[in-house]
Amino acid sequence: MSKTETGRFFEDFRLGQVIQHATPRTITTGDVALYQGLLGGRFAVQSSDAFARSIGYPRSPIDDLLVFHIVFGKTVPDISLNAVANLGYAAGSFLAPVYPGDTLSAVSEVIGLRENSSRKTGIVFVRSTGCNQHGGKVLEYVRWVMVRKREEKAPAPPDHVPTLPEAVAAQALGAACPRLKPTAYDFALAGSRHRFADYAVGEKIDHVDGVTVEEAEHQIATRLYQNTARVHFNQLAESKGRFGRRLVYGGHVMSLARVLSFNGLANAFHVAGINGGRHVAPLFAGMTVFAWSEVLAKAELSGRDDVGALRLRTIATRDHPCADFPRRSGDEDHPAVLLELDYWVLMPR
Amino acid sequence: MSKTETGRFFEDFRLGQVIQHATPRTITTGDVALYQGLLGGRFAVQSSDAFARSIGYPRSPIDDLLVFHIVFGKTVPDISLNAVANLGYAAGSFLAPVYPGDTLSAVSEVIGLRENSSRKTGIVFVRSTGCNQHGGKVLEYVRWVMVRKREEKAPAPPDHVPTLPEAVAAQALGAACPRLKPTAYDFALAGSRHRFADYAVGEKIDHVDGVTVEEAEHQIATRLYQNTARVHFNQLAESKGRFGRRLVYGGHVMSLARVLSFNGLANAFHVAGINGGRHVAPLFAGMTVFAWSEVLAKAELSGRDDVGALRLRTIATRDHPCADFPRRSGDEDHPAVLLELDYWVLMPR
Amino acid sequence: MSKTETGRFFEDFRLGQVIQHATPRTITTGDVALYQGLLGGRFAVQSSDAFARSIGYPRSPIDDLLVFHIVFGKTVPDISLNAVANLGYAAGSFLAPVYPGDTLSAVSEVIGLRENSSRKTGIVFVRSTGCNQHGGKVLEYVRWVMVRKREEKAPAPPDHVPTLPEAVAAQALGAACPRLKPTAYDFALAGSRHRFADYAVGEKIDHVDGVTVEEAEHQIATRLYQNTARVHFNQLAESKGRFGRRLVYGGHVMSLARVLSFNGLANAFHVAGINGGRHVAPLFAGMTVFAWSEVLAKAELSGRDDVGALRLRTIATRDHPCADFPRRSGDEDHPAVLLELDYWVLMPR
Repeated sequence: MSKTETGRFFEDFRLGQVIQHATPRTITTGDVALYQGLLGGRFAVQSSDAFARSIGYPRSPIDDLLVFHIVFGKTVPDISLNAVANLGYAAGSFLAPVYPGDTLSAVSEVIGLRENSSRKTGIVFVRSTGCNQHGGKVLEYVRWVMVRKREEKAPAPPDHVPTLPEAVAAQALGAACPRLKPTAYDFALAGSRHRFADYAVGEKIDHVDGVTVEEAEHQIATRLYQNTARVHFNQLAESKGRFGRRLVYGGHVMSLARVLSFNGLANAFHVAGINGGRHVAPLFAGMTVFAWSEVLAKAELSGRDDVGALRLRTIATRDHPCADFPRRSGDEDHPAVLLELDYWVLMPR
Repeated sequence: MSKTETGRFFEDFRLGQVIQHATPRTITTGDVALYQGLLGGRFAVQSSDAFARSIGYPRSPIDDLLVFHIVFGKTVPDISLNAVANLGYAAGSFLAPVYPGDTLSAVSEVIGLRENSSRKTGIVFVRSTGCNQHGGKVLEYVRWVMVRKREEKAPAPPDHVPTLPEAVAAQALGAACPRLKPTAYDFALAGSRHRFADYAVGEKIDHVDGVTVEEAEHQIATRLYQNTARVHFNQLAESKGRFGRRLVYGGHVMSLARVLSFNGLANAFHVAGINGGRHVAPLFAGMTVFAWSEVLAKAELSGRDDVGALRLRTIATRDHPCADFPRRSGDEDHPAVLLELDYWVLMPR
Repeated sequence: MSKTETGRFFEDFRLGQVIQHATPRTITTGDVALYQGLLGGRFAVQSSDAFARSIGYPRSPIDDLLVFHIVFGKTVPDISLNAVANLGYAAGSFLAPVYPGDTLSAVSEVIGLRENSSRKTGIVFVRSTGCNQHGGKVLEYVRWVMVRKREEKAPAPPDHVPTLPEAVAAQALGAACPRLKPTAYDFALAGSRHRFADYAVGEKIDHVDGVTVEEAEHQIATRLYQNTARVHFNQLAESKGRFGRRLVYGGHVMSLARVLSFNGLANAFHVAGINGGRHVAPLFAGMTVFAWSEVLAKAELSGRDDVGALRLRTIATRDHPCADFPRRSGDEDHPAVLLELDYWVLMPR
């Protein structure tokens, strides 16, 4: 029998199935440096141990999206090796800070299954959980993905579509953020004077800058996360595929948008929750990514007057600067849009 | 007199000569992270301090081939700066684990010399040894390389071709691997249930996945190892050279093949010895690398029932998936083959 | 009001203005590893903790130019986001060693302003200072940069051109270099037997090797330094710009030249001061960089017999090997020249 893993097909999943993912990973300052070089983040909390300590962290925490990508990467060989498309995210919560030296592992539970009418594919819903070496949960999120069937005629499990929240409740936010020391947050060092109170619901922010993605960059990033999805790495196969070229990992677009958002949201130092996300179009090397954000809501956190939560929708585009805030084009997505990400960030009050 | 190093030519070597190589190197978790990003390894022992500790290491050891490349890199300015071709490897043994914070240095002894009949080049055999900061040997291997003569008429040293073992003896393996704690190895976290007993001599494994190499990737990798061989970096010179383009460091192919081999050999967590290796054809950026392996032999280690050794031959190819196990084409190497590597790995029993 | 930073224009600067730059940064061994992979340095002091300790450092210090780039990067959003050209450097002094774990922040003082006759631009002179987490100065340097005016008619501040030293005084050098333990410096491990006494004023050294730069490499390097200058990253905008393509950060050329200079200057382990620097022509990806150096002066350091200072002028070129020591072509710069850097290095006596 072959020892090579071929990944699960749709008919291999069972509702309630719990899958322990392989390859636990110790995150180090080396990972932080490479993420820095690949993305270019400038949030002071993640950049400076001294800054992080001054406000109440023991040291700089690992960037939230780096934690997300590492956990996500572990799920790929078990969940989405035979995926056609990554359809969406919901109910993402960052539950504890992660620091260099922590070891992350991941488990997924199948919480929904629905065969498509073509009988060639089905949708798998999983809740994935990342844990640290003490067994503490650091991240939880739901994603759903369209997975091929091995055989069209194979019987499929009964349909079950989970009920998912439209957004993470504000009172559930902040578990991964220590209470900030009063008046300790240095807005000059952080790069902006704009704090929670300065943002208004409905406000749109063009993040202005653009960054062109190279094949080497997205490949290095995706390997850093031990994400093995084949479409990102194998030009020989992809040259005969849907797009004729390698596809950039959608999470790389999320990170690029997050980093670009510093220009306008410099004090949004922590991603606390992911309400939803949709990869609208593929990104390919050579294209230039831009982003803009809209403030969808503002929330106070129960019992905390140190930080407030902004609900943002950040749109990333390809080869299209965002001064015109592109999103929809009639009933359809604007053709330049790559990503819509709906998430909560925390900001000092 | 010029202060620029031009490297040794064939007639500069003497049998028995011992060369202390420059540039000792402290290996850090930063190197580990960059190696991770460039190659994408998934072996749990090297990925997770917690996993490594659970089975008996004090923490994750440095990847064996990263140790090899760092030691190899040091030898380049002294041994192979004027090399035409890297001909082969033998008698490679990993003698002690290397951990982040260890400092490696390298020494080579000239153990063989043979002028070629053209009198333009000769073959130099060296035994290179990597040591840690305590003077302990961590790696020893023999390589032979064809080196240019400075002057065709220069007298050459007398021929001496060393006797090299066909393979590293199984009883010599395992010095760099601590005794595993019984039952501690978690096969689910490691990514495969297949252990030593599950592999059979003659078994062939297609590692399935392919990875396309970019110029930036192999250049960054080769610089990480402080390997200064000019063919990897200088497009201006190489555009006028044999191939018209930069050549990927052969060791990068070894690492790519090792990483691809995870799919089918996920529990082969340690490269214990290198019996032989041959760079069959050059790799260039833009090509996609695939690999397959054959189990050549199995061996128990004397006095150890925790791990067994598999002798593998891994073949790496360019732009050719390995479902057909390509190796020979009549009397010749299959045209897609890049590398044949014959080595011992350890696997839990 | 927009929350997006657009950077200062010429008329926004005031003589004597002090600007605290954002984004303090903790430098780690991860940054060291990535800098290693991107540049390929071989100086033993920066490569090996054991070597550094043997001569009197507590561990390997951070490469001087990496410190420079990190400090420089912080100044970009405040000083040169609207720059047309980076004109020069002077009075650069490395004042204390930086080690992994140190956190750097930066402040700049405006020390000169001069509007150009076109009234469209002006020259801003700043003294930038990098400090560690204890408030100790680690680096100080002056740069001047041509900055756009927001409005041509805007009144400009009165002209003031600072007096800058032609070179850093030799007696001011060495603050970042501990006194070396006598006889401890191992010239074999360092890679060259040539010490301070072996270099003569007027001596020219061709550094021989060339290295081709890839887009991914310079982008990763520049992001590692959190340098946000747009010309390096945004192909969509640059395709319509002056050069039709992304420009490589000039500091990357400085680092490439420094690393190439190892071949001929292997014991020049510390850059102690930067007397002047000029980016003569732009570098683009795909080009191959070469370098040569001339010894401009030699100096003893007051009260120190362990090290001496060489004043070097290193010239970097594009697509032009340096055996002919290219610099001038009649009254003009040689067309291959990218950079002239005039600096002090320390070398064991």
